[in-house]
Amino acid sequence: MTQSENDKFRDECGVFAVFGHEDASSITALGLHALQHRGQEACGIVSYDQKMFYAKRAIGLVDDTFGQKSVIDYLSGSMAIGHNRYATSGEGHIRNVQPLYADLSFGGYSVAHNGNLTNSIQIRDKLVKGGSLFQSTSDTEIFIHLTALSKKESVEDKLIDGLKQVEGAYSLVAMCENKIIGVRDPHGLRPLVIGKLKGAYILASETVALDIIDAEFIREVAPGEMVILTEKGLVSRHDLAKKDSRFCIFEYVYFARPDSVIEGNSVYETRKKIGEELAKESHVEGADVVVPVPDSGVPSAIGYAQESGVPFELGIIRNHYVGRTFIEPTDQIRHLGVRLKHNANRHILEGKKVVLVDDSIVRGTTSKKIVEMVREAGAAEVHMRISSPPTKHSCFYGINTPSTEELMAHKYSVDEIAKQIGVDSLAYISVDGLYRATKAQNRNNKAPQYCDACFTGEYMIPLTDYENKKTGAKVTQLRERAKN
Amino acid sequence: MTQSENDKFRDECGVFAVFGHEDASSITALGLHALQHRGQEACGIVSYDQKMFYAKRAIGLVDDTFGQKSVIDYLSGSMAIGHNRYATSGEGHIRNVQPLYADLSFGGYSVAHNGNLTNSIQIRDKLVKGGSLFQSTSDTEIFIHLTALSKKESVEDKLIDGLKQVEGAYSLVAMCENKIIGVRDPHGLRPLVIGKLKGAYILASETVALDIIDAEFIREVAPGEMVILTEKGLVSRHDLAKKDSRFCIFEYVYFARPDSVIEGNSVYETRKKIGEELAKESHVEGADVVVPVPDSGVPSAIGYAQESGVPFELGIIRNHYVGRTFIEPTDQIRHLGVRLKHNANRHILEGKKVVLVDDSIVRGTTSKKIVEMVREAGAAEVHMRISSPPTKHSCFYGINTPSTEELMAHKYSVDEIAKQIGVDSLAYISVDGLYRATKAQNRNNKAPQYCDACFTGEYMIPLTDYENKKTGAKVTQLRERAKN
Amino acid sequence: MTQSENDKFRDECGVFAVFGHEDASSITALGLHALQHRGQEACGIVSYDQKMFYAKRAIGLVDDTFGQKSVIDYLSGSMAIGHNRYATSGEGHIRNVQPLYADLSFGGYSVAHNGNLTNSIQIRDKLVKGGSLFQSTSDTEIFIHLTALSKKESVEDKLIDGLKQVEGAYSLVAMCENKIIGVRDPHGLRPLVIGKLKGAYILASETVALDIIDAEFIREVAPGEMVILTEKGLVSRHDLAKKDSRFCIFEYVYFARPDSVIEGNSVYETRKKIGEELAKESHVEGADVVVPVPDSGVPSAIGYAQESGVPFELGIIRNHYVGRTFIEPTDQIRHLGVRLKHNANRHILEGKKVVLVDDSIVRGTTSKKIVEMVREAGAAEVHMRISSPPTKHSCFYGINTPSTEELMAHKYSVDEIAKQIGVDSLAYISVDGLYRATKAQNRNNKAPQYCDACFTGEYMIPLTDYENKKTGAKVTQLRERAKN
Amino acid sequence: MTQSENDKFRDECGVFAVFGHEDASSITALGLHALQHRGQEACGIVSYDQKMFYAKRAIGLVDDTFGQKSVIDYLSGSMAIGHNRYATSGEGHIRNVQPLYADLSFGGYSVAHNGNLTNSIQIRDKLVKGGSLFQSTSDTEIFIHLTALSKKESVEDKLIDGLKQVEGAYSLVAMCENKIIGVRDPHGLRPLVIGKLKGAYILASETVALDIIDAEFIREVAPGEMVILTEKGLVSRHDLAKKDSRFCIFEYVYFARPDSVIEGNSVYETRKKIGEELAKESHVEGADVVVPVPDSGVPSAIGYAQESGVPFELGIIRNHYVGRTFIEPTDQIRHLGVRLKHNANRHILEGKKVVLVDDSIVRGTTSKKIVEMVREAGAAEVHMRISSPPTKHSCFYGINTPSTEELMAHKYSVDEIAKQIGVDSLAYISVDGLYRATKAQNRNNKAPQYCDACFTGEYMIPLTDYENKKTGAKVTQLRERAKN
Repeated sequence: MTQSENDKFRDECGVFAVFGHEDASSITALGLHALQHRGQEACGIVSYDQKMFYAKRAIGLVDDTFGQKSVIDYLSGSMAIGHNRYATSGEGHIRNVQPLYADLSFGGYSVAHNGNLTNSIQIRDKLVKGGSLFQSTSDTEIFIHLTALSKKESVEDKLIDGLKQVEGAYSLVAMCENKIIGVRDPHGLRPLVIGKLKGAYILASETVALDIIDAEFIREVAPGEMVILTEKGLVSRHDLAKKDSRFCIFEYVYFARPDSVIEGNSVYETRKKIGEELAKESHVEGADVVVPVPDSGVPSAIGYAQESGVPFELGIIRNHYVGRTFIEPTDQIRHLGVRLKHNANRHILEGKKVVLVDDSIVRGTTSKKIVEMVREAGAAEVHMRISSPPTKHSCFYGINTPSTEELMAHKYSVDEIAKQIGVDSLAYISVDGLYRATKAQNRNNKAPQYCDACFTGEYMIPLTDYENKKTGAKVTQLRERAKN
Repeated sequence: MTQSENDKFRDECGVFAVFGHEDASSITALGLHALQHRGQEACGIVSYDQKMFYAKRAIGLVDDTFGQKSVIDYLSGSMAIGHNRYATSGEGHIRNVQPLYADLSFGGYSVAHNGNLTNSIQIRDKLVKGGSLFQSTSDTEIFIHLTALSKKESVEDKLIDGLKQVEGAYSLVAMCENKIIGVRDPHGLRPLVIGKLKGAYILASETVALDIIDAEFIREVAPGEMVILTEKGLVSRHDLAKKDSRFCIFEYVYFARPDSVIEGNSVYETRKKIGEELAKESHVEGADVVVPVPDSGVPSAIGYAQESGVPFELGIIRNHYVGRTFIEPTDQIRHLGVRLKHNANRHILEGKKVVLVDDSIVRGTTSKKIVEMVREAGAAEVHMRISSPPTKHSCFYGINTPSTEELMAHKYSVDEIAKQIGVDSLAYISVDGLYRATKAQNRNNKAPQYCDACFTGEYMIPLTDYENKKTGAKVTQLRERAKN
Repeated sequence: MTQSENDKFRDECGVFAVFGHEDASSITALGLHALQHRGQEACGIVSYDQKMFYAKRAIGLVDDTFGQKSVIDYLSGSMAIGHNRYATSGEGHIRNVQPLYADLSFGGYSVAHNGNLTNSIQIRDKLVKGGSLFQSTSDTEIFIHLTALSKKESVEDKLIDGLKQVEGAYSLVAMCENKIIGVRDPHGLRPLVIGKLKGAYILASETVALDIIDAEFIREVAPGEMVILTEKGLVSRHDLAKKDSRFCIFEYVYFARPDSVIEGNSVYETRKKIGEELAKESHVEGADVVVPVPDSGVPSAIGYAQESGVPFELGIIRNHYVGRTFIEPTDQIRHLGVRLKHNANRHILEGKKVVLVDDSIVRGTTSKKIVEMVREAGAAEVHMRISSPPTKHSCFYGINTPSTEELMAHKYSVDEIAKQIGVDSLAYISVDGLYRATKAQNRNNKAPQYCDACFTGEYMIPLTDYENKKTGAKVTQLRERAKN
Repeated sequence: MTQSENDKFRDECGVFAVFGHEDASSITALGLHALQHRGQEACGIVSYDQKMFYAKRAIGLVDDTFGQKSVIDYLSGSMAIGHNRYATSGEGHIRNVQPLYADLSFGGYSVAHNGNLTNSIQIRDKLVKGGSLFQSTSDTEIFIHLTALSKKESVEDKLIDGLKQVEGAYSLVAMCENKIIGVRDPHGLRPLVIGKLKGAYILASETVALDIIDAEFIREVAPGEMVILTEKGLVSRHDLAKKDSRFCIFEYVYFARPDSVIEGNSVYETRKKIGEELAKESHVEGADVVVPVPDSGVPSAIGYAQESGVPFELGIIRNHYVGRTFIEPTDQIRHLGVRLKHNANRHILEGKKVVLVDDSIVRGTTSKKIVEMVREAGAAEVHMRISSPPTKHSCFYGINTPSTEELMAHKYSVDEIAKQIGVDSLAYISVDGLYRATKAQNRNNKAPQYCDACFTGEYMIPLTDYENKKTGAKVTQLRERAKN
């Protein structure tokens, strides 16, 4: 997955916030640990103790940054917000590590968000022309600038004032001296849930971040809703323009953790159902084993196996001990990565007719390597089943996909892809099948409940910056070296 | 798991060696990556380029130490040996990181090993009295001293001279200027396999280290065998006293990677068979789901599910993003570790009669936490099935178990354990059942093919140091601080 | 020396800039090395290569940050500006490390400065109320914001627009895509010189930064002057209100390097002359030796010795190997620091009537320790002579002195000080004597050519922020933790 | 200065020890700080608290390694020994950082030393043939091995047994469980003094290490003497063969700190006297200024100025802020180093007839650069005076000089050197003049009281290893990479 056009940092992240608990930073660290799958490059926490704001932001995993008691002790206070960031191709831009912070006219203000704005370059250009200084290349700073420039009275009114100017997907948490605010964009593209831990309120990207601290799940923040946490409790506002709910269906397919619950659906069960639908839609006659590409393919493979009656087996073993050095998502390393991460379990594959289940095919290079490995281990036939429809269009709403031109399914038909990755047969779940697995109605009824732009190309939010990109405007001309 | 008595470092490790390949150190790094599960605390490589020996040894994962091209380039030559070390409780004793190296009368000499000597303190005492200096507290230095002091001519004769004095379990690799030597102890307790990659010979703890570099598996080094790799090829010697083969059965149960092959057995298949035997021995009437404790319980749970017809489900999700800070294996962190590593998948567990499959119960604290979590997620009944017999005795042959007194199964009956960890029923596989799963004959025929001392208490190698420990002799009086 | 009120970072620094040399960043690194005495806590360089700006900023010495070829190579381009910063008491605020950078409407813009604004908090408050975001607590960001908000056309007009709003002392360098700008405040409090190296122009705080790269000294930037370096050469502008030149006389006494030349005066010669004046003003009858407190007291002591005919001797030896750990300028460490930095040379002092020459007495704690040490080494009498008048008033124009209340000469008479630090006699140079040594006319003629506020209390620039400080307005509410 | 032949590490160091003080490690850290000039590459402390030995050894300055309270607290106990090591050309061989430690038959044993053995390779070869393992390439390990192998009863007898086998220069400190031992070689080449701090005994390379902790100087350890510090006090032994005292005269000229006292002589006074002798021996008619090459040339220049009546001036200013990156003593960096370290003080030099005083000329490259710089600053004439005789012979007794072939005075006459470094005249002090300055009799009387081999070539200790070096035996074949 790559950094987007124009050097803007595209966020694929997890957020967390707690209001009213004496161990606010410790709880936030645990929440971020549970959300680590949403971003492994960097993380940060900002807390407030009624006197000062405290920040710790660093490149690296949550445990490595917040594992030390002294760091947690430093982040004092009963309010805190936190953030995980996904890998970027860049030079370790520490200035992009969230939450961001600024002193505004009403006091300290800190914001973290998950998502991607589609008109942030346009807004930034306007603000810079008006004399605003930008320190980061992250969308989060847009939110802060718009809040700072609003003439409204209260922080929440200022923020709403700003949000009315942006387009795109976002789930954000913001903190000022006496409140924490959570907002989801009008389409509710990115997740955000509310929890309660004794008297304290929690906001988090996924329910797993509530589970780790034994917090009670209350409900999801609604699309377009703003929730304000203060000493008096939770207040809900709906000032943003009302739009159709269009949650990102790719969270179900791949991004969310299987033990999370979204819209009342268990993600694990949903993935299993996708596997079941897939087994119905594209049965493999006489298959010997169903083998997942670990770890993401496992639940769908279990579903496929249960539906088809073909035994589920770990025909590919994943090595989880992959260090930092190989983390960088360059093409070259990704190729090597397959060999470092996966090994064929020969006794399971030898002479067998194998159904290989994976969640998606992006560039195709990983799939090709996996299939080669399975064949070298002696598989008689390899039939690949994908638990998402063909990924034909780039995402502009917060998932860090390659540009449309780099997507294998954009360039080739299913048959061509099958040939190129070397399988005996290839089938993707249909869009309708995917919708059925989520308990939604069929997609075909023209009333999509999800954002499925990556599969259908139907972008419901304008791609303003993308359309304007021929201007070649750079977001920043600065490159900064982090390490000696 | 704890550091052993008398401050000696007890090794639980992986070894690798390559002779005759221009990318020797790169191949060794990949091999160590594949063996990372055998030791995550530290790693090292020593190479030789016909002029000099080169070493790089560090605390940390293989990828982090050997991920940089400049490090691999530094380790020049067509011969190399490497080593992974398991976590110790200590202060980052860099001097214990293997391979060790010394200049002997015949030139440079480097050794790495996996296993544990049971008379090393006795030998060390004798050598120190004779004027030998010890720099590390690892058994590996014993091998080097004994080699150095031997009056024999060739390196291999010197080494054999030394090996005749030691008791215990070891699979070692040694390198001098023109050869690499591999040896397994007479009982063959620890694994060591031979591979070939084009013209080059490989030695490795497990076959997965051959898979990652696409090397061909030739055969296992036999118990008591020494193999000598030179320009002329492989020579085999059998100078050590012949003894019964007694491979460590715990490698099958837990320690080896599932995609490794041992004695012609797929480890994955063996674990599945243990699960099948377990299902036969201790069926759970009316169970709804079979749930593994991930990751080690997965293959046995699949076997149990297939044999019993009860569906296999991921009722517990493991978070693999656990950083360095929480790695330290203290009791306190281990408790916390459960919450950081595992989360209940509520939709799978709620209202269900659950068969929970794990590989072993050591101190019982982890199991108790897991069961609590499963119950809190709403499980109606929890029936635990363990894919090894009760671990009643400490290991002195290279697996880093707690002392016998700390083992739950040493102190309590199965019924008492069930009560303490809070399950509705608890059953372990029988020793005979375990033997059957490995294709061996029953254990009951009095001719055990494996070392099963941790289950049976039958130690076939004398525990000399352990018996002598009343003397209270310290291995070293030095504590060294690694970091500022 | 301490951090100022209201958490604002008070700058005591060195600046450097080069326009039109292919080794711009390498030259800047050397220049900063020569200016290291002006700030040892942090340093930074920003360069521009006609395509991008490149930055490297870090806590630490110049050599440690810019000693690696790869860092210099990274900072490509023929234009660069650099900065050294003095020790602060804070938590390693990396965000304050200069030069600062921002993308403005006209492109990239980077600024570094030496000095202190006396109305920056007032300006900042106003800007924040207008919606500006501040990332640092340094005055430099004020310059950038004011430039960004100006409606003028050219960068230099925008900057002048901003400078007209600020009060205080500053020598700044600024860089945009096609020019480098240097400015001194209207009183010319802080130094800034112009040099030439082949075709390239240099700006630097002191002439020593020209010497190290063998550049030719052209002239000083005049008080209130702006110089603009472009491809066409140097253009000078005088848009700022004309005021009396009032260069900081403390630069002569202590801050500048002895081998620098200021206003045509050799700093070394000036210090020697101060020593000569001191010998005339306060002769010590029958003295045996003149001993400097090294290193800053050495030139004045040589002057004193030459004038008085008493032999100059190194009666105190300084240990230059003082590491980072002891660098922090807390009171406690400063006491310890004396013992770590200085040792008495007993053979020189024993039984002698000693004239001890130092540059200033600030809190008095260091002087007391030194005198004790000299007495313990056997000195019969200790007569202290100080090469500056009593420091009675805090500096608000860029030298990091304690608050007025902490200054020993503010609280005590000369006799009281003599008693407290334990000397047989104590004399300071008179203000007139100091003026004579600089070749200026007497101070008494009521037309001071220098800023001597720290001695006289005559602050010629309003102390706006200081007067307003009763409001207790914080500059920032954020504390950020730099290290784990 | 370079690493010696055969890859052996040649020690040029400082040692310190304290017996019987509750703050033993803190005192040792301060002592090492005062001895930092004797070795800046690495340092270490080993302490003993009646239960365990504690070690901390690291690359870097004393302050950086021992500046943290937690490190000092770690090194508990009332006994400690410490060591500073000079820069080596190598790869940061942490295994060579002293004090070394080993568990011997009688318990823990730690040794640090200053000096160089001339038959250590011969001894090492013999020991390796006998089966001894070497971990470092330092002579210190020789002492430990010989102690370990001795059949004598007490530690001191064992050590004497070993010392009888070695040739060379050494001042060592050794610690076991109940005593600290200090020894100087029979010629007393390297310094070692005894101090007392309340009830505690101190051993240190120079008296300045006593001054810093306000300890009382008792006396020097005599050549060939062993002092043993126990609870009962100090015991002195003289078991080594009696030889003529031959202290290293270069300690007076350059190596010792000026505020140290050696043989009752103030080093500073001695250097001044050398300057006086030099002024008498080689007067410069009509000179305007005497200018030292700082810092080492300062005392001799003061002496020269006082004797000749020519004013002493700081015509060259040294920049002490030289970071780690430029520290490496390669030839290339040393050239650059001159510009980074020194700057001409033009006003002092312009148009003047300058007497330039330095302590020695080794390769001549530094002197050449200095002279060039002085001429470029406008000096009319440059007359160089050197406070040591021509350095014609390499040192094998502990000063890290280049090989004889690289020494400028070995290859060229004084006239040729003058021409090459570009001075109008050049004169060295005579050997007799140097002896006179130390209060010794003339050297010419054939009874030298000092080791002056570097000037005279008269090596009074056999150069066994050097003579044998044609065998080309390597001390070690291992190269180890310290950093990633």
